Amino acid sequence: MYMNRRFYEKYVSTSDVELLHEYSLKVLKEVGVSFASEEALAIFKKHGATVEGNIVKISEELLNKALATAPKSFAVTTSAGETHIGERFKPKTVGCYGPSKFLFEDDTYRAALLPDVVKFLKLMHTSDVTDFVNNSAYDTPDLDKSQDNFYIPQVALCLKYSDRPTYGNVANSLNVKKQSLKDAAKEIANLYKEFYDIWDRPVLLTNCCALSPLGYSYEVLDNIMGLVEEGQPVTIITCSMTNLTAPAALMGSVIQDNATILAGIVLTQLINPGVGVIYGTVSSPTDMRKTAIAIGAPEAQLIQMATLALGRYYGLPVRTGVSGSDSLKPDYQAGVESMTTLMTTYLGKSDFALNNAGILQSYAVGSYEKFVLDEEVNRILMRLNKGIKISDTQAGKVFDEIKKAGPLGNYLSGRTPKEYRDQHHLSQIFNKTAGDPAVIFEEVGDIRQRASKIIEERLESYQAPDLTKKQQELLNRYLPESEKF
Amino acid sequence: MYMNRRFYEKYVSTSDVELLHEYSLKVLKEVGVSFASEEALAIFKKHGATVEGNIVKISEELLNKALATAPKSFAVTTSAGETHIGERFKPKTVGCYGPSKFLFEDDTYRAALLPDVVKFLKLMHTSDVTDFVNNSAYDTPDLDKSQDNFYIPQVALCLKYSDRPTYGNVANSLNVKKQSLKDAAKEIANLYKEFYDIWDRPVLLTNCCALSPLGYSYEVLDNIMGLVEEGQPVTIITCSMTNLTAPAALMGSVIQDNATILAGIVLTQLINPGVGVIYGTVSSPTDMRKTAIAIGAPEAQLIQMATLALGRYYGLPVRTGVSGSDSLKPDYQAGVESMTTLMTTYLGKSDFALNNAGILQSYAVGSYEKFVLDEEVNRILMRLNKGIKISDTQAGKVFDEIKKAGPLGNYLSGRTPKEYRDQHHLSQIFNKTAGDPAVIFEEVGDIRQRASKIIEERLESYQAPDLTKKQQELLNRYLPESEKF
Repeated sequence: MYMNRRFYEKYVSTSDVELLHEYSLKVLKEVGVSFASEEALAIFKKHGATVEGNIVKISEELLNKALATAPKSFAVTTSAGETHIGERFKPKTVGCYGPSKFLFEDDTYRAALLPDVVKFLKLMHTSDVTDFVNNSAYDTPDLDKSQDNFYIPQVALCLKYSDRPTYGNVANSLNVKKQSLKDAAKEIANLYKEFYDIWDRPVLLTNCCALSPLGYSYEVLDNIMGLVEEGQPVTIITCSMTNLTAPAALMGSVIQDNATILAGIVLTQLINPGVGVIYGTVSSPTDMRKTAIAIGAPEAQLIQMATLALGRYYGLPVRTGVSGSDSLKPDYQAGVESMTTLMTTYLGKSDFALNNAGILQSYAVGSYEKFVLDEEVNRILMRLNKGIKISDTQAGKVFDEIKKAGPLGNYLSGRTPKEYRDQHHLSQIFNKTAGDPAVIFEEVGDIRQRASKIIEERLESYQAPDLTKKQQELLNRYLPESEKF
Repeated sequence: MYMNRRFYEKYVSTSDVELLHEYSLKVLKEVGVSFASEEALAIFKKHGATVEGNIVKISEELLNKALATAPKSFAVTTSAGETHIGERFKPKTVGCYGPSKFLFEDDTYRAALLPDVVKFLKLMHTSDVTDFVNNSAYDTPDLDKSQDNFYIPQVALCLKYSDRPTYGNVANSLNVKKQSLKDAAKEIANLYKEFYDIWDRPVLLTNCCALSPLGYSYEVLDNIMGLVEEGQPVTIITCSMTNLTAPAALMGSVIQDNATILAGIVLTQLINPGVGVIYGTVSSPTDMRKTAIAIGAPEAQLIQMATLALGRYYGLPVRTGVSGSDSLKPDYQAGVESMTTLMTTYLGKSDFALNNAGILQSYAVGSYEKFVLDEEVNRILMRLNKGIKISDTQAGKVFDEIKKAGPLGNYLSGRTPKEYRDQHHLSQIFNKTAGDPAVIFEEVGDIRQRASKIIEERLESYQAPDLTKKQQELLNRYLPESEKF
């Protein structure tokens, strides 16, 4: 079992949570949340919510009714097995999500193309710290955009290149032109069902982001309704920015986010009581000097901790971030910020992290090198979370060793003991070599060079999933021309 | 007041601490600690410890007697005021300590010279996150080594370049040739007393490192005895390495370190009951692949957390580390590791950190650039530690703002509100700019270039302390020839 160290409790107390909850209720009841969908508004109205124009006001009673059916955990099932998400399970992760530009190994920034998306899928598929796969970039310039729905061809790539479960994005009005987005979402859900031949359980998890402050676009709502009707779980998140789309004070950001997320969760449960839903946020502070989102700033972690505390209070699976940075390169800043922003997920602990590796410049840039570097941050946090093995048996054993070595003795023995191997994380990418620094640097090279080497090795080791003829034929109905079997 | 978030409690429970203590007592009583000093052995004997050769075995009773007089906190006084160290005070820090080689801004590694030591003193003196100053490098190649004691000239530099308190190292048999090291330590203490004209209080804090496993060299003991007799506080630390100078299991490292540190602390209190003493460790895991100390590995932080838990159990001021890394450059690895290893100090919290900035390659290399980069890690951790302001008043205020903005509204107003400025850390060195990454990179430059610019600005802003004629004359008795007034 993965230990939950509840790091967030050191920042947000039970009475803090109660106060945050109390004011979130006030926001839900007195201010309300905007839903840009007649269908969604009708569902709320039918269940007794106050609907004024697009604004839905939700009572404590209706909220509690919805929370009562939202499950504590759920599993996504694929041909390869079940992936469980919830407090009792280790945090599940998925890498680089959505930037249109990548920083490539030649140190230039360019628009990502389909082969780059494929390369990222291979990195995720071969990662020891990534559970789901996803599309790293969307609507790349080389994609055939003449089709009515050029979103689903991109989705099909995930199924072609990995047997790990998919963490999906929502179809939008740019990449789905005629079909309703609800139908597009249902079509995707059914593609997964058919591909796995699993019809009665969740087979796909999708990221659904609210519009801050206190709103949901018709695009996201159409996707939520389509997916949830198909019994597919969704993540409801906010991505507000302090002093722009949320109050300047962090407490305000947390209350507003909480009310927004809860309203979305209520909708899922009204449509399909018991459907899986993740409570999450990647809301961030704003750097007002350049009006930039500052995902790597310490306030981002603080917002995450409050989110996690609230998600636990509601007994829901929780998503926090991210191995993210506002840096332009995988440099010192990127290291500091990626460690800081991912800490809450592993030590917090939360249940899901998107962008657990590979993101630069506040979600705007993807990087293969940063992906394999961030993987190491994931590993370090997992090792930290394991803690120190302290037990009576261990005490007796080490006492005997200390006695045997004696003052000024030593512990080197013929072979490395089991305790050493069990209790020490040995990095494959970080330098751990003593000696003349200039000489060692010649030997080991720059960390980005080492990252490139690991990327190459990983791509070489990649093995495509073994798909049936039927699965290949199914995917061929959707895959981009260049990617068909 | 600085909030103590007791991060370590999530890793080491009260019953863990009791077990660690129980076995440390067993080590003190049954294995003992080696003291390579007849004088120290005689002191232990006089107070009823069992002395067998160089080995001192300490009973629980003697330990408790010593712990009863060791103060919970103490202050170091200089002309500029008092610096308090203890659980109730914010962690005190001092930068880059002791590497003989630096990585310079031209990206080459070279032996540090006296002007480099001076440059580092100026950076520490102008730092907003460094409380003490110290010698960054010792016994530089350009130092006149013909004198009997060429340690004290280096110490005098600290007094010349900063009115902040000094964190000292111990004199050793290389830099003090004829004089006894005890006398050399006393001479240093008296230089500080005379310089400040403060005779009745601590004026200097000194780092005293044990020899693992379970020993103290005569050099360190001579310094401890001299300083403590002069009423000056010392830090007693271990720097063991798992599977080499400590057991392979982290628990063994912690027990052995604890017994070692406690034995040293007992000595200080037997000599001068009530003298200030810091309980500390920078013990680390070993990377056995190259037999290198791995100060940036996650196990180093775990050892620190156990140390902190034990130090709190004994009611002593605690030193943990370090903004340290095993990396050769101020790169991604350095960022990750510096954040990881410094976390315990600020969130733990402990009371003192040496090397809070400027260290690379596991203590072997110093770097100005890393110093100003690490400063930012200190600031981020301080911001994190402040947490989220959650109160009824704040709740009422943000609710009104949320209501006013309303769903899909915005929070931008004419001027940036006070809450924004109070609750957001705005980095001066980390990039926080949205827009085309290639264009921005052109503008802001590489992070090391930005660091170099900050170094220049800091050196330009440096102002030497205003010393009296008498103080200058006193220092002229000691300063290296090139540094005399």
